[in-house]
Amino acid sequence: MSNPIDFYFDFSSPYGYFAADSIDRMAAEAGRSCRWIPILLGAAFKASGNQLLIEQPLKGAYSRHDWDRVARMSGLAYGFPDPFPVATIAAARVFWWLDADDGTVAKDFARAVFAAYFGQGRNIGDKAVVAAVAGECGHDPAAALAAMDDGLWKTKCRDETEAAIAAGVFGSPFFVVDGEAFWGWDRLPMVRRWLETGGW
Amino acid sequence: MSNPIDFYFDFSSPYGYFAADSIDRMAAEAGRSCRWIPILLGAAFKASGNQLLIEQPLKGAYSRHDWDRVARMSGLAYGFPDPFPVATIAAARVFWWLDADDGTVAKDFARAVFAAYFGQGRNIGDKAVVAAVAGECGHDPAAALAAMDDGLWKTKCRDETEAAIAAGVFGSPFFVVDGEAFWGWDRLPMVRRWLETGGW
Repeated sequence: MSNPIDFYFDFSSPYGYFAADSIDRMAAEAGRSCRWIPILLGAAFKASGNQLLIEQPLKGAYSRHDWDRVARMSGLAYGFPDPFPVATIAAARVFWWLDADDGTVAKDFARAVFAAYFGQGRNIGDKAVVAAVAGECGHDPAAALAAMDDGLWKTKCRDETEAAIAAGVFGSPFFVVDGEAFWGWDRLPMVRRWLETGGW
Repeated sequence: MSNPIDFYFDFSSPYGYFAADSIDRMAAEAGRSCRWIPILLGAAFKASGNQLLIEQPLKGAYSRHDWDRVARMSGLAYGFPDPFPVATIAAARVFWWLDADDGTVAKDFARAVFAAYFGQGRNIGDKAVVAAVAGECGHDPAAALAAMDDGLWKTKCRDETEAAIAAGVFGSPFFVVDGEAFWGWDRLPMVRRWLETGGW
């Protein structure tokens, strides 16, 4: 049995949104499973000293332009959201709540959260919005709200972020395949090559 | 006549070395010319607030591993050089001196400088090494040494770095095609797609 692909992301990461669109397809083509692991990028940034792209001179303007361009290339609905970034802890906790029962269902919810934020401009930092998105995915919004405040998912969310940082994750998206780390949406072709060749 | 590709790099950038191996081939396949523009990345980093990859927690270890991996994938001779990074102003000035006469000759010299540093572990921050590399390319080492201290090439080197920063360049390698900026070795597939499709 081949190793799964670990796909780390933050729900407010545009490149995470773009990667989420293709990573499962790429994994399936290679006969691999894919684990989605939402993390809180702010915590990873503290560990790595990274800063938000849009707050950096030159890079900020580049990134804004690049997100538009990647979205057009990918055929994904995209608008730069306002506010940006937002806290994604509520969405991450609901993800883990769903994931405990069914990983596929959790991924569908994650795609819907990404689409709500980047495609529809809804503020996923707002618990009510996250609950509404859960409702649109067929879950009980009240149960989703409860999951956001449940110590179990608070702990799970914190532990997964800490484990990610311990594993060397410092950005979003971030992929680990066969122990090899790949950082960034623009590394997907290299991940594909790794999967096709078994490494080099 | 199609626009040229502008290829910005610093001689002590590993990803610049990897990009230098393929950008001209990619340009030729697309019927484009390619201008090589060595810059002093330290000045660009001051403008953008960027830091050296290897000085950053997590990212530093990732980069060291990634350079080895990209080199193996590309089939390029590569060892992490010591010292790293080095001042590349001498090499850049010699480049501009040669480029004034013949762009192709200047590129051959640039490839030799990259190979000397990353392939052979020679310290290209040392003027004598740069002069020796020029000699190996068929140029007069004494004339190369003189070019390093010539006000004409000092000015040209400074002006090109300033123009690059003004154009939004903040890293190495950095490509500009038809007014579109692409940052990083890992964007070469996207540059190729741009060239093939004429943009999107």
